[in-house]
Amino acid sequence: MINNEGNTMSINDSPAIASQSPAEPVQMSRRRLLLGSAGAMASVSLLGLSPLAKAAEPKTLPDYVRWKNANDMIVHSANTIETQRGAVGSGVVTASDKLYVRNNLPAPDANIVADRDAWKITFEGVNSPQSLTLGDLKKIGVETVTTVLQCSGNGRAYYEHGPGGTQWGTGAAGCLIWTGVPLREVVAKLGGVKPGMNYITSTGGETLPEGLDPNTIMVERSVPVKALDQALLAWDMNDEPMPLAHGGPLRMVVPGYFGVNNVKYVDRVAFTEGQSDAKIQASGYRIRPIGEKGAPDQPSMWEMSVKSWVTAPLTTASQGKNLIYGVAFGGMNAVSKVEVSADGGETWKKARFLGPDMGRYAWRPFVVSMDLSAGDHRIVSRATDTDGNTQPPTRTENERGYGNTSWKDHGVTVTVS
Amino acid sequence: MINNEGNTMSINDSPAIASQSPAEPVQMSRRRLLLGSAGAMASVSLLGLSPLAKAAEPKTLPDYVRWKNANDMIVHSANTIETQRGAVGSGVVTASDKLYVRNNLPAPDANIVADRDAWKITFEGVNSPQSLTLGDLKKIGVETVTTVLQCSGNGRAYYEHGPGGTQWGTGAAGCLIWTGVPLREVVAKLGGVKPGMNYITSTGGETLPEGLDPNTIMVERSVPVKALDQALLAWDMNDEPMPLAHGGPLRMVVPGYFGVNNVKYVDRVAFTEGQSDAKIQASGYRIRPIGEKGAPDQPSMWEMSVKSWVTAPLTTASQGKNLIYGVAFGGMNAVSKVEVSADGGETWKKARFLGPDMGRYAWRPFVVSMDLSAGDHRIVSRATDTDGNTQPPTRTENERGYGNTSWKDHGVTVTVS
Repeated sequence: MINNEGNTMSINDSPAIASQSPAEPVQMSRRRLLLGSAGAMASVSLLGLSPLAKAAEPKTLPDYVRWKNANDMIVHSANTIETQRGAVGSGVVTASDKLYVRNNLPAPDANIVADRDAWKITFEGVNSPQSLTLGDLKKIGVETVTTVLQCSGNGRAYYEHGPGGTQWGTGAAGCLIWTGVPLREVVAKLGGVKPGMNYITSTGGETLPEGLDPNTIMVERSVPVKALDQALLAWDMNDEPMPLAHGGPLRMVVPGYFGVNNVKYVDRVAFTEGQSDAKIQASGYRIRPIGEKGAPDQPSMWEMSVKSWVTAPLTTASQGKNLIYGVAFGGMNAVSKVEVSADGGETWKKARFLGPDMGRYAWRPFVVSMDLSAGDHRIVSRATDTDGNTQPPTRTENERGYGNTSWKDHGVTVTVS
Repeated sequence: MINNEGNTMSINDSPAIASQSPAEPVQMSRRRLLLGSAGAMASVSLLGLSPLAKAAEPKTLPDYVRWKNANDMIVHSANTIETQRGAVGSGVVTASDKLYVRNNLPAPDANIVADRDAWKITFEGVNSPQSLTLGDLKKIGVETVTTVLQCSGNGRAYYEHGPGGTQWGTGAAGCLIWTGVPLREVVAKLGGVKPGMNYITSTGGETLPEGLDPNTIMVERSVPVKALDQALLAWDMNDEPMPLAHGGPLRMVVPGYFGVNNVKYVDRVAFTEGQSDAKIQASGYRIRPIGEKGAPDQPSMWEMSVKSWVTAPLTTASQGKNLIYGVAFGGMNAVSKVEVSADGGETWKKARFLGPDMGRYAWRPFVVSMDLSAGDHRIVSRATDTDGNTQPPTRTENERGYGNTSWKDHGVTVTVS
């Protein structure tokens, strides 16, 4: 399936779907290359690659995200665009123009954001089911919450068994301020959730390609109904009307949950007894052993876990005192501590958080001052959340390369001179 | 004095200087017009003006701030550009592309941000005076702080005696995230402040026009040395390298102090016994009775006071339940409470804050739900800080129209139908 940019797209992560389209090359693991200007060779050495590995041609930003800052982005494909690791800086909030993009289907036509308040959302599985417009929602209530948005496959590039899909490093993540109506307030207005409903099922308003079973391609995700306490139907991102590329006019935001559950262009919210039959829910985004197919009984990519990574320095540094920066978040809990090591994890030094605390679901930039001697240093960071969960040294191996939180994998080798 | 945009510029607020240049028209009070598209007639009625008042031609953004979002801005002149009142939304942080601009001198040539780390700053009045580069500063330490940046003349448009200068409404203010080195850490490195020094005096690196006494035109501001505890030499704004228009590569940020003290392109920081002799300090930015000239014994525009204003709705609303939005800040203290009235201050309803608390010096968006009946409503907001200071009903009259915090002045008249 080729979108109008001429780039390939992957509809979801299923090999069956992939075979219907000239999808992204598989077996890209350990060959992921930063396509930005200065980073290419540097990242080769970071990933322990032979300098003989060939760099792909840099790709330009597709039209619908031309407004992003090209220098901060790595264009994997028209629908998978990563933030450069070094672009985060001391960032409390990720500016929209450097936020990653991962669309499971091409973004709808821009006419859906021409009259935002007219956008319709159907609510089902409540005692008084009905359709409301975005204009209606704006009158019900409002809240603003800051969350980490992270793709399930962030960190996939570090898996060695070669999972297909986009070879994300650290940049399929950002920290955003969302404004919208709490879903629970809408539900209260609609008479409450019907008895026996276990899931919140959100459907994206993308136009589906013809000739395919909708279930194999539609973006419809179910999350446990307990997420009702935090879920937001958001119309603003970073105090701007939600950009089309990020789900405007309306996006489901489920704080602490992986990106895929934050359904874009949401036009239906249903409280359901079971999970959606859509492939993206039933077999996609499932944690399973290497070599196995996805199935509904495997863990779904819902709640995120504690994670951190260094954002500077990434390749070189000067001898002596250096400030080492990074970001850390707890997923479902606030992050409470970050430690940094410049010797690959032999010895650790506690970092301090930088800037305001944006709440439980946000990330926190961190910084630590370290004296570095000449030579190569493996710099790693390790975060702990308020429940005492600490980032593990190694990843959990799984077929699709999901949910990588290994602190070893996310380290960088910096040459100090 | 005409800059290369062909627009007039006001060098500082002194009538003496103004007479040397075709400065902004005086007697503009109550004739301030929103130059944006839809707002012009609306604001006329807000200000209680006759519809016969003539609107000026809309002005386009000058080249050095062409990257700003024109729809969010009101261009008063090349160096005075206001944020539209309604552009704030539910904004925890003000995006750079809608932040106001107020330059006392034209912005320097863009080559000063070509090699940011090479920028030199001289430190004086410390025990080991010396020059450091921005690159040096970045190794000393780092902190991130969120502050309200507000021009001393914000709200001048509401004064009735006709103070000259830019006729700012509410939009010469924003809330920004700054990252840089705490000044106190630099000073510690330079052996501490010399005994007997009472002020921190910061000098801007603008190129001064020839043929004028530098003291009459240079941007050099002194603040009490107690601000050393909070002051930051900032290189990032909203996690991007400081834009040239906002003082890049390096800006002095004095949390809680009016904008003018946050010296742009800072290239000298001196601890001094007395205040600067520069006109902008000695007689400019002084609170004095109407008709009097500025003098050093009058209060300087240093610490900001508690203030708030409504940002939506501004002109019209529908009968029934409405969410009323605004922003509030405490100046030197955190804001603790905001009340909103839809009957010009007869009865009040407590608003709630929206989104994360970004710290003592930040503003907080607020929202309150109110039932509005058909007819005209005067909507006003009134903030209180943690010390119990409440926004006053009326402004403090003063020659230059500085420091307006009157809740009456900042109200809007909304037609409900």
